Amino acid sequence: MAVRWLAAAAAWCALAAHSQDLLKDSPAADWRALDPDNTIYVELPAGRVVIELAPAFAPENVAQVRKLVREKYFDASFVIRVQDNYVVQWARPETDELAKKMASVKVKPEFLRKVDPNVIFTKLPDPDTYAPEVGFSGGFAAAHDPKRGETWLVHCYGSVGVGRDNDADSGNGAELYAVIGQSPRHLDRNITLIGRVVRGIELMSVMPRGPGAMGFYDKPADYIPIRSVRLAADVTPGERLALEALRTDSATFKSWIASRATRKEAWFKDPVGHIGVCNVPLPVRVKP
Amino acid sequence: MAVRWLAAAAAWCALAAHSQDLLKDSPAADWRALDPDNTIYVELPAGRVVIELAPAFAPENVAQVRKLVREKYFDASFVIRVQDNYVVQWARPETDELAKKMASVKVKPEFLRKVDPNVIFTKLPDPDTYAPEVGFSGGFAAAHDPKRGETWLVHCYGSVGVGRDNDADSGNGAELYAVIGQSPRHLDRNITLIGRVVRGIELMSVMPRGPGAMGFYDKPADYIPIRSVRLAADVTPGERLALEALRTDSATFKSWIASRATRKEAWFKDPVGHIGVCNVPLPVRVKP
Repeated sequence: MAVRWLAAAAAWCALAAHSQDLLKDSPAADWRALDPDNTIYVELPAGRVVIELAPAFAPENVAQVRKLVREKYFDASFVIRVQDNYVVQWARPETDELAKKMASVKVKPEFLRKVDPNVIFTKLPDPDTYAPEVGFSGGFAAAHDPKRGETWLVHCYGSVGVGRDNDADSGNGAELYAVIGQSPRHLDRNITLIGRVVRGIELMSVMPRGPGAMGFYDKPADYIPIRSVRLAADVTPGERLALEALRTDSATFKSWIASRATRKEAWFKDPVGHIGVCNVPLPVRVKP
Repeated sequence: MAVRWLAAAAAWCALAAHSQDLLKDSPAADWRALDPDNTIYVELPAGRVVIELAPAFAPENVAQVRKLVREKYFDASFVIRVQDNYVVQWARPETDELAKKMASVKVKPEFLRKVDPNVIFTKLPDPDTYAPEVGFSGGFAAAHDPKRGETWLVHCYGSVGVGRDNDADSGNGAELYAVIGQSPRHLDRNITLIGRVVRGIELMSVMPRGPGAMGFYDKPADYIPIRSVRLAADVTPGERLALEALRTDSATFKSWIASRATRKEAWFKDPVGHIGVCNVPLPVRVKP
């Protein structure tokens, strides 16, 4: 398949050039540095996963997770569940003393919030199956219901949320999950999302699927240890990654959406001209 | 997280009971045995991946893949590309003599087809971002454009297609891919889909992501060998899996869609009442 491989490489280069031009030529003001107080590093044996927190959507749950991280709560945590085409989930083992204490802690559910007219919502033009309107706010995929005046984060690949029991207020930040499959949009408005993985989701998506019900590992020996979880604000400057994200309210981001909806590469014979909220890659780079 | 884990188990049992009832109580006629001539077994070191072919949508490409399988073309093939949140791709190495011969073979592109009024299309009620209508035909997720009188298979998790170069007719079945991430719907109508993985996609989705551009493995030493690819029709009865799929034109399937759109489990506080074409699981079971 020499030809196909060469073509793939050529297509990649064309795309890379196109994207690079678009992003490279963008004004520095169209980018924002990740806030170290809202960025956490999950250190796995395979490397670092970087999560950006979304306090604008889930202030109490984000504050709770930040507190747990600062207490080094997650340093003795493990990936305890990997369900194919769904989620990776991590927590302290259920036999752990601190985990037992956390079991009764309740944090206010933040499944949705009232629309704040001061928060910019970059709306996508195409219909969405699950919500009246979808788009982006402050770097996150989100939905709007103008009639109800409500907005909420939507579940896309890489979204991070707070596991809970049947009671709406039973999530407390001690058990977190990241999406590793087709956007499970039926979870929207039913559970608190606190952010998204901006780097390293592939370290989670390759993890062995759990053999138990819902992908739980049935033997503690299978748990994947998490070495540490830290706020970017709390690591040494040498350990910190200078990441910046494309502002989702910038002109460059609008061009980016258009370029992904109507692909210009020669490979595409019939560019669709539409794009879904979970199909827009959210550019993140090391500050140039 | 004892409580959360117990709740998860309870939720699972409730769901399992619900689903089991729905599927268990269904008439045998709502199920169809997979056709051994349209079922292929991809034998990986980690186990078997079962693919159902869709000759109604891509007769020439399916015939070509069936021919290559019967010639044992894929017995010397490898997974050569794994791109996170996108695809796993397999082929013979580009240095292989047969692969070089195949490079110039062309097969008619079958990106879409005219609607056949005799083929039942179970339409979903909700809007889709990419197509005028989406639903299911003959066990596969599909789209319809009534104005143009066209239908096509859509890219969902587990969809299997024929890799191609820039020329529309450059795909020839010698290089195949399976989707392992968010539905890449922008590929719809641009490449030939030939079926879907009905069992074992998790053996592919955990494969190490390729470090090269577009997820290609840059060293042949990293290629993942495929032991053999066989038609179910060509293996011994003892090697054959008696799988059956829920008919997508059955009453049970309509109830199934409804049960997935409006989840009844106690865990859900605000069941959305909508469902996307790539979020409906297509039930497949070993014949009871």
